[in-house]
Amino acid sequence: MERIYLDHASASPVDPRVLEYAEQYLKLRFGNPSTLHSKGLEAKKALEDARGKITELINAESESSIIFTSGATESNNLAIKGAAMRNIQKGKKVAASTIEHISVLNPIKELQKSGWEFNLIPVDSTGLVDTEKMNAILTEDTTVVSIMYANNEIGTIQPISEISRVVHEKSLYLHVDATAAGGRIPVDVQNDGIDLLTLSSNDMYGPQGAGALYVKPGVKLQPILPGGGQERGLRSGTENIFTIAGMGEAARIAKNEMVEESRRLEKMRDKLIEEILRIEESYLTGHPTQRLPHHASFRFSRIEGESILLNLDMGYNIQVSTGSACTSRTLEPSHVLLAIGLKHEEAHGSMIITLGRSNKIDEIPRIAKGVKETVERLRKLSPL
Amino acid sequence: MERIYLDHASASPVDPRVLEYAEQYLKLRFGNPSTLHSKGLEAKKALEDARGKITELINAESESSIIFTSGATESNNLAIKGAAMRNIQKGKKVAASTIEHISVLNPIKELQKSGWEFNLIPVDSTGLVDTEKMNAILTEDTTVVSIMYANNEIGTIQPISEISRVVHEKSLYLHVDATAAGGRIPVDVQNDGIDLLTLSSNDMYGPQGAGALYVKPGVKLQPILPGGGQERGLRSGTENIFTIAGMGEAARIAKNEMVEESRRLEKMRDKLIEEILRIEESYLTGHPTQRLPHHASFRFSRIEGESILLNLDMGYNIQVSTGSACTSRTLEPSHVLLAIGLKHEEAHGSMIITLGRSNKIDEIPRIAKGVKETVERLRKLSPL
Repeated sequence: MERIYLDHASASPVDPRVLEYAEQYLKLRFGNPSTLHSKGLEAKKALEDARGKITELINAESESSIIFTSGATESNNLAIKGAAMRNIQKGKKVAASTIEHISVLNPIKELQKSGWEFNLIPVDSTGLVDTEKMNAILTEDTTVVSIMYANNEIGTIQPISEISRVVHEKSLYLHVDATAAGGRIPVDVQNDGIDLLTLSSNDMYGPQGAGALYVKPGVKLQPILPGGGQERGLRSGTENIFTIAGMGEAARIAKNEMVEESRRLEKMRDKLIEEILRIEESYLTGHPTQRLPHHASFRFSRIEGESILLNLDMGYNIQVSTGSACTSRTLEPSHVLLAIGLKHEEAHGSMIITLGRSNKIDEIPRIAKGVKETVERLRKLSPL
Repeated sequence: MERIYLDHASASPVDPRVLEYAEQYLKLRFGNPSTLHSKGLEAKKALEDARGKITELINAESESSIIFTSGATESNNLAIKGAAMRNIQKGKKVAASTIEHISVLNPIKELQKSGWEFNLIPVDSTGLVDTEKMNAILTEDTTVVSIMYANNEIGTIQPISEISRVVHEKSLYLHVDATAAGGRIPVDVQNDGIDLLTLSSNDMYGPQGAGALYVKPGVKLQPILPGGGQERGLRSGTENIFTIAGMGEAARIAKNEMVEESRRLEKMRDKLIEEILRIEESYLTGHPTQRLPHHASFRFSRIEGESILLNLDMGYNIQVSTGSACTSRTLEPSHVLLAIGLKHEEAHGSMIITLGRSNKIDEIPRIAKGVKETVERLRKLSPL
């Protein structure tokens, strides 16, 4: 049975065109961009080309606004701790929505241990940030506010421009985690009014192990990895040219193909939602329309998401997710699903589908059949 | 004119056998090791296989002693800041040799800003740590001492076992940066008495963008990148499986071939040193015998290392280094060369050769000729 891979939010295969472009930086052009000889200059050029491609993807002011990191977790850490520590004179207060990724929430919890105040901004039942409540929560001494562009578990896209307006009336900086959104929907840091933006390479079909942080000109950060002073002193360590070059190329391809590919995936997603909601006691989680084009998330009453995942994998060779891979180590229900108002037992029955370039519309009947049979079988076995 | 690449300390090409092994993790086996389905399990297996290979390379107690990071800079930051912050009850004092890499020195300078005391341990004119002076400097409240296994600029190998004995009489932890030594000379963390050890993937012909930190069982660290809790909670972020699998395979190959390859490179290095020291007013830097097998470093009076580098590159297609690539951003003379007692003007005339697998003994006449002609030409042009 051919594999149907529906878990692109956890990991995506590298696009073959990205590999074809970037593999020269593993073999022939392997230099260190900080060295002065010809091998270093080749690497330096690859690094700056990649920076240019990321700049274009998000309409940054200039190439120098892009800092390469080892991934989204590091970008989130650098944005939040870096901005908070460097601008401590503004106040020891940070804020974030209740549905942020754990790599945003945990750095803030680290700050809390050093006496920072952490204000949580609630979302409604579809996952949208409540901007009125946000306005009431933010104060003149809030240093940085972190709101994700789109949520990885429920797909909801935030009204970032509106959020930016509210944030900037009081707070210093808006950090936006665009790990799930980058390369999937248009992100324009200037139009959206973003100060710091996290991007991940693999989430747009680039190699794992690279991320970027957009830093608006004038925004002040303290580095979290001091050393050789690479990346304008904001991120030390020899740049991983293969991965960075691959991320750049992935960004270029994503930008070129975004309109058409989004339309294709949206159509597939809508059909999938329609089919799966035919199953009894199945519900869409997240926003019905303001959601990522490739993202369909559900909950089913009286069964466990992990059982769905394992059954679909073993019985149908279909790979889905039941929550953030990054929190799979715990058996706790998803903090995102609790934040949108689900009860513990409701949150446990979650299934997330994230479509990608390899998926085709004719896979839908097999997916729908697999999910339906799996849910029905598990319900029969369930003691609930 | 065929390229002769002699700058393996700045960047090394990935070994073709490493690529052949690891590229499956870019294409087919691209999973996220934290996911529970079959794609995740494949990735998890690759991750644990790599951990096993690193464990064997350095004779660690167990696989769980190995933490993967994004590279040596991050490993050094995690070791030093992580150990210092987590064990603050021992005392707010850290120590390091004067010739440590900047990715060790700069994290310590960051600690200094938060009130930590930084004790510098001197070295002699060959770069060896003075263990008697070290003994006098360390106190009961020294939390972590950082001494590199071998120096990247002058090749000197430290007597780590002896250093370990002195450190452990008073201080809590010994961190050893083995970026330059790992995969090149035998490193045995248990025999050597090491608590924390930094390794770099690319320095042993693995892909750029991965490193490891050995953490002796029982050693307590505070993570510097909180998030999803990967790597036993010590390093969050989705693991970069291609790079990590490549690093593991690179470690396996290095271990297998170390004895033979070291002997080959040593012979070449000695011949090279003999030839280059025929040049008037040329001097070996670092230790004459206790040095890395692939490392030959020199200084030439009355000329600039950067000019040597550029002339050899453009005129002879030979790539050498004049100092750590990581400090090439500044025009300051190398802190390592100043620490072994050279004057500013002496330190400026530095040339570093780091040999690798692609180098052959019959390249020596062309290298020797190139260096001799370059030095003589530059001296004619020199106003000094």
